[in-house]
Amino acid sequence: MSGDPAVNVCVSGAAGMTDLVYFRSAAVPDGAVMRRDQVSVSPNDRGFMFADGVYEVIRSYGGRLFRPQEHLSRLRLSLEALRIVLPDLAALGPVAATLVARNGLSKGDATVYLEVTRGVHPRAHGLPREPGVPTVYMETAPLDPRPEDEEQGVCCITVPDIRWSRCDIKSIALMPGMLARQQATENGAAEAIFVHEGILTEGTHTNVFGVKGGTVLTHPATNRVLAGITRAIVLELCRELSIPAAERGITASELSGLDEMFLAATTAEVTPVVQVNGRKVGEGLPGPATRRLQSAFRAYVSKALDA
Amino acid sequence: MSGDPAVNVCVSGAAGMTDLVYFRSAAVPDGAVMRRDQVSVSPNDRGFMFADGVYEVIRSYGGRLFRPQEHLSRLRLSLEALRIVLPDLAALGPVAATLVARNGLSKGDATVYLEVTRGVHPRAHGLPREPGVPTVYMETAPLDPRPEDEEQGVCCITVPDIRWSRCDIKSIALMPGMLARQQATENGAAEAIFVHEGILTEGTHTNVFGVKGGTVLTHPATNRVLAGITRAIVLELCRELSIPAAERGITASELSGLDEMFLAATTAEVTPVVQVNGRKVGEGLPGPATRRLQSAFRAYVSKALDA
Repeated sequence: MSGDPAVNVCVSGAAGMTDLVYFRSAAVPDGAVMRRDQVSVSPNDRGFMFADGVYEVIRSYGGRLFRPQEHLSRLRLSLEALRIVLPDLAALGPVAATLVARNGLSKGDATVYLEVTRGVHPRAHGLPREPGVPTVYMETAPLDPRPEDEEQGVCCITVPDIRWSRCDIKSIALMPGMLARQQATENGAAEAIFVHEGILTEGTHTNVFGVKGGTVLTHPATNRVLAGITRAIVLELCRELSIPAAERGITASELSGLDEMFLAATTAEVTPVVQVNGRKVGEGLPGPATRRLQSAFRAYVSKALDA
Repeated sequence: MSGDPAVNVCVSGAAGMTDLVYFRSAAVPDGAVMRRDQVSVSPNDRGFMFADGVYEVIRSYGGRLFRPQEHLSRLRLSLEALRIVLPDLAALGPVAATLVARNGLSKGDATVYLEVTRGVHPRAHGLPREPGVPTVYMETAPLDPRPEDEEQGVCCITVPDIRWSRCDIKSIALMPGMLARQQATENGAAEAIFVHEGILTEGTHTNVFGVKGGTVLTHPATNRVLAGITRAIVLELCRELSIPAAERGITASELSGLDEMFLAATTAEVTPVVQVNGRKVGEGLPGPATRRLQSAFRAYVSKALDA
């Protein structure tokens, strides 16, 4: 069916476990939880024609969303950068929680994918004269934890950073990341780390940290990286644990001199990196600072969920 | 309705003039001409979630497509760069012609917008393991000619080139171009010209040419610009008219010393630029080389359509 406003009804239990999604658009202005196959995105949605949209991925642990407000605040920044106005953005937190519950994801880990686009407009460059109704789409997925990655660490490759220079906007234009991620997979690596002008910026969906002489290093939150929520928590934990930390980029030539390395992200949490481009990082094992931060991060999550 | 294969029927004449579109997807595997509001793009189309798609805009003059094969060849290159396989790409030329006719655009000028995405896949970074069915979408629009632009010339601004470094792929990730175009509009300019490391690359939907000391200059067809079809014709016409031409980038500091400047594109054809950032180009009027190339381009189009 096309976006018939009449779909704003309860959906029967016949749908698959994670088949309920949330959709709001010019054709469904009040928004509704519906089956995935009931969603009809217009071909003139600027998300489909211009990548004119932004997104967030929120994690839930045992059905409880982790730091949803931080994700929605970041979404607001992305939307503001594109001048997309979504007045009731705060209402999306409860919708995300409802969707997790209704999709039977109250046990185990899951992710909520939330996308907002500028909505449906006749194709034209520049901004539409009338702002119109932004499209909102939300889906959930169970998250298979990969304890072996967090335990043993992963291998990465470095790739040239061919992305645009507003990586601080969480844009849906993910093709460069997709190509880099594919290259990683084909090289037996878990993640590709972008290098811009000789400096490691971030991974395709992770922030990158190094440890050198006891100091934790990560790229500053400039236009070249996404200001990761896990990244910020790691820096906060460094302060709490009195681990020296500096927001400065690691150069590619410094790689061989790093003692430790790890990735931080909503899905990857704190994951050690033990090899880059086939060469060991430090001893080729997760390092002590990484272990301390992993453990502190888990405690942080537990505390946040209990609060 | 969702993409019911049964829609592959003739559509009644009740549809608006340009309301017929072509759509093919996993749900409509044979493709069909249908009303725009019958098209249902899945939210899991990678065009909607990853900007994982490419496009072309083909122009028609009096109902006849101009250089459709060149556009389809370029589309093939874009698709290959993304490893999207579309075996029957050549069949889209006749579909485009049919759509122009059925939308009543056989008189006057029109554009055909053609988008191909990787299709519908569960959200995951990297390439899907199974290639799946690419989504194909085509729509037409009447093109309002702007003879005053080609006659009197237009004003442009320059903006930092914040785009990714694979501008040779005609990706649907057009947000940086959209933002730049908007900035142009708000500054009373017709086009924004990107500047990368001090060198003019191209406009948001045009290639940029300068004339200096009798030589026509344009950025070489590297990864920094789209290899424009009109651009190639202009270079061919330079050879025919014995106008010296060089494929080398114009530096921003050279701007004040240019005698002439013009844009070349499918929609803009050959459009003089008379002002950049509020400063006159040369005498601030369309120059003689630009006029010769405009006139030769019109003759070229006529000849091509008659062939």
